[in-house]
Amino acid sequence: GVQLDASRFSQDAPGPLAADFRRGSVGDAAEADRARDFADGANFRRARVGMEGRLFSDWDYAFLYEFGGTGTEGGGVINAAWLQYSGFGRTKIRVGAFAPPTGMDDQTSVWGALFPERSAVGEMVRGIAGADGRSSLAVLSNGDRWTLSAALTGNVVGQQSFDEQVGLVARASILPVKGSDYLVHLGVNTTQVLEPAAGGPDVAPGATRNVRLRERPENRVETVRLVDTGNIDAKRASVWGLEAAGQFKAFTVQSEYFDIGVDRRASPLPSPDFSGWYVQGAWTLTGQPRRYVAASGSFDAPRIDRPFDFRKGDWGAWELGLRVSELDLNFAEGGAGTAPRTGAIRGGDQKITTLGLNWYPNAAVRFSATYQDVQVDRLSAGGAAFGAGALTPPAGAQVGQDVQIWTLRSQYAF
Amino acid sequence: GVQLDASRFSQDAPGPLAADFRRGSVGDAAEADRARDFADGANFRRARVGMEGRLFSDWDYAFLYEFGGTGTEGGGVINAAWLQYSGFGRTKIRVGAFAPPTGMDDQTSVWGALFPERSAVGEMVRGIAGADGRSSLAVLSNGDRWTLSAALTGNVVGQQSFDEQVGLVARASILPVKGSDYLVHLGVNTTQVLEPAAGGPDVAPGATRNVRLRERPENRVETVRLVDTGNIDAKRASVWGLEAAGQFKAFTVQSEYFDIGVDRRASPLPSPDFSGWYVQGAWTLTGQPRRYVAASGSFDAPRIDRPFDFRKGDWGAWELGLRVSELDLNFAEGGAGTAPRTGAIRGGDQKITTLGLNWYPNAAVRFSATYQDVQVDRLSAGGAAFGAGALTPPAGAQVGQDVQIWTLRSQYAF
Amino acid sequence: GVQLDASRFSQDAPGPLAADFRRGSVGDAAEADRARDFADGANFRRARVGMEGRLFSDWDYAFLYEFGGTGTEGGGVINAAWLQYSGFGRTKIRVGAFAPPTGMDDQTSVWGALFPERSAVGEMVRGIAGADGRSSLAVLSNGDRWTLSAALTGNVVGQQSFDEQVGLVARASILPVKGSDYLVHLGVNTTQVLEPAAGGPDVAPGATRNVRLRERPENRVETVRLVDTGNIDAKRASVWGLEAAGQFKAFTVQSEYFDIGVDRRASPLPSPDFSGWYVQGAWTLTGQPRRYVAASGSFDAPRIDRPFDFRKGDWGAWELGLRVSELDLNFAEGGAGTAPRTGAIRGGDQKITTLGLNWYPNAAVRFSATYQDVQVDRLSAGGAAFGAGALTPPAGAQVGQDVQIWTLRSQYAF
Repeated sequence: GVQLDASRFSQDAPGPLAADFRRGSVGDAAEADRARDFADGANFRRARVGMEGRLFSDWDYAFLYEFGGTGTEGGGVINAAWLQYSGFGRTKIRVGAFAPPTGMDDQTSVWGALFPERSAVGEMVRGIAGADGRSSLAVLSNGDRWTLSAALTGNVVGQQSFDEQVGLVARASILPVKGSDYLVHLGVNTTQVLEPAAGGPDVAPGATRNVRLRERPENRVETVRLVDTGNIDAKRASVWGLEAAGQFKAFTVQSEYFDIGVDRRASPLPSPDFSGWYVQGAWTLTGQPRRYVAASGSFDAPRIDRPFDFRKGDWGAWELGLRVSELDLNFAEGGAGTAPRTGAIRGGDQKITTLGLNWYPNAAVRFSATYQDVQVDRLSAGGAAFGAGALTPPAGAQVGQDVQIWTLRSQYAF
Repeated sequence: GVQLDASRFSQDAPGPLAADFRRGSVGDAAEADRARDFADGANFRRARVGMEGRLFSDWDYAFLYEFGGTGTEGGGVINAAWLQYSGFGRTKIRVGAFAPPTGMDDQTSVWGALFPERSAVGEMVRGIAGADGRSSLAVLSNGDRWTLSAALTGNVVGQQSFDEQVGLVARASILPVKGSDYLVHLGVNTTQVLEPAAGGPDVAPGATRNVRLRERPENRVETVRLVDTGNIDAKRASVWGLEAAGQFKAFTVQSEYFDIGVDRRASPLPSPDFSGWYVQGAWTLTGQPRRYVAASGSFDAPRIDRPFDFRKGDWGAWELGLRVSELDLNFAEGGAGTAPRTGAIRGGDQKITTLGLNWYPNAAVRFSATYQDVQVDRLSAGGAAFGAGALTPPAGAQVGQDVQIWTLRSQYAF
Repeated sequence: GVQLDASRFSQDAPGPLAADFRRGSVGDAAEADRARDFADGANFRRARVGMEGRLFSDWDYAFLYEFGGTGTEGGGVINAAWLQYSGFGRTKIRVGAFAPPTGMDDQTSVWGALFPERSAVGEMVRGIAGADGRSSLAVLSNGDRWTLSAALTGNVVGQQSFDEQVGLVARASILPVKGSDYLVHLGVNTTQVLEPAAGGPDVAPGATRNVRLRERPENRVETVRLVDTGNIDAKRASVWGLEAAGQFKAFTVQSEYFDIGVDRRASPLPSPDFSGWYVQGAWTLTGQPRRYVAASGSFDAPRIDRPFDFRKGDWGAWELGLRVSELDLNFAEGGAGTAPRTGAIRGGDQKITTLGLNWYPNAAVRFSATYQDVQVDRLSAGGAAFGAGALTPPAGAQVGQDVQIWTLRSQYAF
């Protein structure tokens, strides 16, 4: 399938470089003098080609290569390449590169997604020890009303580090209530980074093993990330997530909450703790209900029985979506205008409200229009992290910003 | 399909570095001490794989990925990825990445091309706001004897800029005369760069929006460009082109002329104007005529009815080609030995004569042997643009050069 | 097909940086402070997709693209793209990018290989003027009991140089003894670098034309090379190889010896000479014999008639392998603790013993577990080649090292 996104960004006019830190510093120091605004443009988000199949009755395989990327299109990367033994009935063993289950948003397919991008926290959490192209060894199991999975994971394909990260992700979900046109989904999931990737060789006192949490504003036409903890030298990281969702006819609602803790390594500083959540609802205006997929424990897009044909008066499916999300990467951030306390992390708090309209002319083509209101509240930690010289914001200055984004995605599957 | 080119370059022996500027400086200053000659070698020009098809009767799509490149082979890039609504009869709406029509040379397929590369001016003009992988929204229409198209375009896939370029390309062509074995083709086309790509963020007095015109000598085994205007900070650029072609049995002739104007931005300097043209003729020695393609308004290769088989005495098709082309990127260049006037652009004037012999053993395999005589007349603008220190050519010194190139292309389609 | 390798490396704990040169310096000076140990991890060694076929009865073609790589996964590269005329019976003419025959190990397919990687010397020799993606023009011929091939070769796809390397590779092999369940194979091969690739333009006294011999320890999860001659400015390089192999039922044995000479260019120093060899044996525990492929003059994996099915008690094929190899890149290296003589090359002597166990559950899936004992004996040439400052090993210090490597490869073909 192929997805093309075009986005337009709207911000207040910038104030003087040396005083208006609220809008001048979206990234790190190197970007301070050029990232004064977001770049309007178009971007191929993904173009995937590949194959999957069955070998000798008990073995399944897939190979998917992905072109496209964030901000600009890259040279292509392995999205999935795995081999699965399916000879044990409901329980499968899979080895290779793939996205092991880390949550409900994570397990929603590209076609089934309500908006062009996942919630910021769902995307960030899957990136810790899951996500496409993750080297994994997984046990996957499901029935009609439950899923259960656990995976031992390494690095993502193409990611370079000294010794690789060692992680564990697991998820369980259940449908306690299920009728012909309604259901309730509950789930729990965890991501454990047992050993962060090593930044160097094993010389005393040991290489740094950095964990860095950061995320884009649910948009990938621009590469900028507005919230970012910076590197935290860590022994471990631990995420726990809760999932709740429900459907009644053409209405669905879905929500997840994540708590993220990072254990500092060889440091007297307190170990920080972060969190995030989202709630989203969908309403198919033309009546077709979203479909619940038992194998992945997540929703798929509505089924289109009569494709768009203006001569016959068929219009496919039209769907409205609303999402509110928050990703809070602050820890003991302190008050505005003050210097940060020892061990504080001023990663920023990002709230996004998204309104979307999807048109599915048929089962292979889709257009999505979204409006996002992004609000970031972030204090400067001081120093040159957000710009040097005249650009240096004083400790405690507001460096967050508000942006409105209009996006149109055109996509087709083949 | 795959195309492999092998080239051999021939030049006079170089004179002393500090005196022979005519042959020492083919690129910019950084290349002055190493680009003393052209590198003989072989290069995969293109290797394309992909798929195209129809979805639900009214929607067409294509996805083409291209490996290969210029000089050396790169990591691959999206050549085409588009979705087209074809439910309105003759008029189609297409969105995605593709080459919107910018002229007759541009619309000739790789298989239909008479020589391994397009005319220098045709290639340069399509690169301004068209070319493979261009993000576009187009309306395309044609009948048996006419074509009409217009497209709004952005950046090429993988090209990074701050805000993207906004362009408009349009073309109309007609066959006023058409018989069973003869025809006359006339056409007009335009490329308008409404907003050049921004080189930086929107801070006062505004980012530079550079337009740069340059082109290779109709050969891509070497990466070097012998003519180059350098960056021109511009409000707009505007190209107008005229097309004329004709066929009589196994003979075809084809010609295009382009006028290219660039409007300087925030500058008192005069806005420069450039031009280029080519005339080419083809003669199929074995008699099979080239085919005119109504949908693209351009010629395709001859049809091979009996493939090569030396046991039966079948030899496929043999074709002779001749092209004369000029690309003049000089503006108010002044005389040899003089310093350039204010606002002058010494981009160089390149004349190429190409003689080619094509062998098509069958409808999927082709070998092309070409000889090119390249003559570049270019004066140094002075300063260090063509080399620093002892290598600096004085203003007005001749820095153009003459090269002969022998090329053999092996190609097959699948 | 796809191959995923996971490796674990074992070494003695490192001594102090400034004294323990034996384990501190695996690469060049730039790596001295970070390459203190090998990085455990997993790596997609190859993922190949492509197509091959026949065009118009006498023409064959192939296009294979390879993702994956060494150490970390790269952006993909053309593995093979060739066109072959097969209309002359037993003798074929092939042009494009492919691996021209340089030996028996070289001609063994990925599926047929006994271990995850070729012998160090076999891999190094094929890399000189052969290997995947080599631009070549070849004549290939074979009967039931012989092969004969010669190829003119250039650079590998994607390799950049000024003028390209010009090489010649040739191979002849024969089966003097062949019965229903036994055979003897003999072969001879040569690789001639007629003109090494030019490192710069053709200015007097001529560009350097470097030949550099180096190789990894038969493992590609790590990128490190433990033996390396460094650059040798050369007129020519010449390799001669001898092959001998035999089969009796489920047992095969195979051996090759290579002599490698490099002719220095414009230098009074003696021209160095290197060598390498390997002997390997395979025993299929479950009885299926390896298959000899007449077209390539090499062994393929055993045939699996009854795929793995634990319910029926079928276990596919299990195979044991043992290899001993040596690659000696020392020339007049002198004694430990001494400075090198003029013209000496201390590239190192690498001996590897490999023990492997292969499980083929069916004809498309395979798991290979290998244990390698790597011993490198290498003296420092002095100077900063193995680290600067306090890290500088004195001339004649031991900089080789011993490593044990455990590897598990999972692979499937499609």
